[in-house]
Amino acid sequence: MASLRVTVWNEYRHEKESPRIAQVYPQGIHGAIAEGLREHGLSVRTATLDEPEHGLTQQVLDETDVLTWWGHMAHGDVSDEIVDRVHKRVLEGMGLIVLHSGHFAKIFKRLMGTTCNLKWREIGEHERVWVVNPAHPIAEGLSDHFVIPETEMYGEPFGIPEPDSLVFVSWYQGGEVFRGGCTYYRGQGKVFYFSPGHESYPIYYQPEIRQVIYNAVRWAAPTHGPAIEVDNRKEPLEPVAVREL
Amino acid sequence: MASLRVTVWNEYRHEKESPRIAQVYPQGIHGAIAEGLREHGLSVRTATLDEPEHGLTQQVLDETDVLTWWGHMAHGDVSDEIVDRVHKRVLEGMGLIVLHSGHFAKIFKRLMGTTCNLKWREIGEHERVWVVNPAHPIAEGLSDHFVIPETEMYGEPFGIPEPDSLVFVSWYQGGEVFRGGCTYYRGQGKVFYFSPGHESYPIYYQPEIRQVIYNAVRWAAPTHGPAIEVDNRKEPLEPVAVREL
Amino acid sequence: MASLRVTVWNEYRHEKESPRIAQVYPQGIHGAIAEGLREHGLSVRTATLDEPEHGLTQQVLDETDVLTWWGHMAHGDVSDEIVDRVHKRVLEGMGLIVLHSGHFAKIFKRLMGTTCNLKWREIGEHERVWVVNPAHPIAEGLSDHFVIPETEMYGEPFGIPEPDSLVFVSWYQGGEVFRGGCTYYRGQGKVFYFSPGHESYPIYYQPEIRQVIYNAVRWAAPTHGPAIEVDNRKEPLEPVAVREL
Amino acid sequence: MASLRVTVWNEYRHEKESPRIAQVYPQGIHGAIAEGLREHGLSVRTATLDEPEHGLTQQVLDETDVLTWWGHMAHGDVSDEIVDRVHKRVLEGMGLIVLHSGHFAKIFKRLMGTTCNLKWREIGEHERVWVVNPAHPIAEGLSDHFVIPETEMYGEPFGIPEPDSLVFVSWYQGGEVFRGGCTYYRGQGKVFYFSPGHESYPIYYQPEIRQVIYNAVRWAAPTHGPAIEVDNRKEPLEPVAVREL
Repeated sequence: MASLRVTVWNEYRHEKESPRIAQVYPQGIHGAIAEGLREHGLSVRTATLDEPEHGLTQQVLDETDVLTWWGHMAHGDVSDEIVDRVHKRVLEGMGLIVLHSGHFAKIFKRLMGTTCNLKWREIGEHERVWVVNPAHPIAEGLSDHFVIPETEMYGEPFGIPEPDSLVFVSWYQGGEVFRGGCTYYRGQGKVFYFSPGHESYPIYYQPEIRQVIYNAVRWAAPTHGPAIEVDNRKEPLEPVAVREL
Repeated sequence: MASLRVTVWNEYRHEKESPRIAQVYPQGIHGAIAEGLREHGLSVRTATLDEPEHGLTQQVLDETDVLTWWGHMAHGDVSDEIVDRVHKRVLEGMGLIVLHSGHFAKIFKRLMGTTCNLKWREIGEHERVWVVNPAHPIAEGLSDHFVIPETEMYGEPFGIPEPDSLVFVSWYQGGEVFRGGCTYYRGQGKVFYFSPGHESYPIYYQPEIRQVIYNAVRWAAPTHGPAIEVDNRKEPLEPVAVREL
Repeated sequence: MASLRVTVWNEYRHEKESPRIAQVYPQGIHGAIAEGLREHGLSVRTATLDEPEHGLTQQVLDETDVLTWWGHMAHGDVSDEIVDRVHKRVLEGMGLIVLHSGHFAKIFKRLMGTTCNLKWREIGEHERVWVVNPAHPIAEGLSDHFVIPETEMYGEPFGIPEPDSLVFVSWYQGGEVFRGGCTYYRGQGKVFYFSPGHESYPIYYQPEIRQVIYNAVRWAAPTHGPAIEVDNRKEPLEPVAVREL
Repeated sequence: MASLRVTVWNEYRHEKESPRIAQVYPQGIHGAIAEGLREHGLSVRTATLDEPEHGLTQQVLDETDVLTWWGHMAHGDVSDEIVDRVHKRVLEGMGLIVLHSGHFAKIFKRLMGTTCNLKWREIGEHERVWVVNPAHPIAEGLSDHFVIPETEMYGEPFGIPEPDSLVFVSWYQGGEVFRGGCTYYRGQGKVFYFSPGHESYPIYYQPEIRQVIYNAVRWAAPTHGPAIEVDNRKEPLEPVAVREL
């Protein structure tokens, strides 16, 4: 697994605009996520919105096995051309891990086909992330649940398709629940949405969160199944016998 | 839908043994559930454990479109023969609604193939039942969530197969979540598990609970698809042409 | 169910451009589909691409419970504005039945988030449509399979998300299979894709096909669950107690 | 992955009773399956029905990461005690690969909760195994389909729960289809059913079949999520605040 090539993408605006958030994430949210993955021995590079082509050139994507995505205040600044490029790569097999407010990222809404609407509240309440599919590799190494001391609440109903597997459900102190760990197969690719991770809290330093993101990267690593292509076949594979109906 | 024939099955032991519980359910838990379904215009009969054949003769089952099941302290007293009979009817198309502590009923464990283990706590905390699949007919007429003032907690991980659709997730005051509304196709039949409903609390009088059980009965009503049978076919449906590989 | 309001949408170009196809569908493909639904007592109107707003004004959609969609040669002529409008209505609860070559319709690709690619071949081979979920209401009244005497082949891998329920799988004489009956929950709405129905063959007159489309319309009928909305909540539902972690 | 410990279980009766089948599988079906897994570098042992405890002592199971199961004519001779033991181990995390006629094995029916009925025909027709989920790791290294020159037909409807992921669908020359590659999460364990593999044909020597079984073993390898236990909690995790409803 050491040979997996991960690209950690971050909008990287909050950290530059807010001293309070910069204090939480001095190397940017991408820096914290990348650090967590490197601790697990993965090969990681980062890319951010304000780089040319948002740091996601065709070459970078071609050399990426799994892409993680964090965005929030500037979803609209992501160019449609880059969204198309990432979308195509996911459908061809690149893994995609969408984090927290990435639920409203163009790429996630494109892949889901729905609004991805949700309820939210930011009062620093705490969250309990419960494992509901203990057999899933993304739950590797976890206890039945873990606590995030201060979090932003995300609440149901969440406007997503039913996940192919639901791995985590979050409990919030203020009364809501959320399907916060959802897997999807899309084309030849695998997608995982993971809800924890607000910019105001040091969530991406938490060991359980890092474990989940690492697990998710391994699960989402490309496998090499057949392509899904348009093919106008002139000839049958089997002889077509005329028969009486 | 008025012609749907529902049988409400109840273990009916707690109510006879505990004056406190008898006070909550003077007509038995089955009485309260049946009343709720009759309010919606359905044709309902009841059956209980201590009747001959537990009230579930072959004829009763043959005349039942949907069976609801409540049991708790006496799962072991349900005869295997009756479990076989109910199992067979479900696989042939009879709907089954398993309620609350019925998660440990023989019939539910048989249909699930798993332990159906869970965590539990009875301190009269309250519960919020959240809709997570607003498109599902079992969510008909509900708001985004409703509150059960005093409840028994059921907590994850819950040892069930991933539901075919997850309709509800419960939030508990004490910190847990639970996949409390789960649908399953099994054979030609439909199964719904719904977690609320402890014997100590007047939960089956609550309008939202009655709405859910009514919705579930309608959803689980038999449809008439093909049988699933063993068939040793001698003849192909199509002429089998020999070919070069 | 008689009160269900169905709109049958058809591209309606093949029938106007090809005398051979006009002979198969003299009232248009929409005419044949509408006739089949009316036989079952539903209230049906039709709409076609070349009408103003493709016949899908806001008022028409507001008065539509379930929309069926047939398109093929002119997917690109459907305006993005109308696609947005239909998409929004589906997510708000209107049922959508996508037929045959509608797999490449903008609205279907938007809802799926994938390429919807497939293999195809048109040599008039025949097809056997097998029921794989006999408990599903869309299989109501069917035998284990039925035959389409002459069909266009659609082959796997089909570039769709895994269906929430797979109801039918087709067998083709030339050697392929296809997941031809797929259900999806999207937002508050329900979507069914059904693959049979090429313009060159009288498939929409076939009783089993009409049965399936009728079943699908009933299954996809709007139910009235909670809306899926963005809501920035300032206040918790429960008192947030500070605690030691 | 080399450290994965696989136990290949075989009923091993056909090979001893029929010279024709012994000629196809001189080392037993288990010998052929084990050989295929060893080619991929796995550590493999075998076990058969007529060994003491069917070769599946508690120690053997404790040392097994993934168990493969082939049975046919003697399902009834498998003791319920051993079935209980295997069932428990699967729910605790051991992977299980059920092959071909193992669809009627006690352990598979126990895990599914359904009849597992199907249609069948043995005329040596051929089969095309199509990949329908190209993103799934069990499709690793495969083309869009592969051919089995001579096979036993298994036909729908197949009396199983809807799979958590459907990976393969088989086409048969005689007109049927079959969901022949199905994954299930059960407890902490993973289960894969794979239909090819009749005793009369040299199917377990075929490279694509060996690839699939190898892929399945890797997919089903235990991961280490939380246990699913009964726990009567006296204390809430969060302070339970009394509130006005």
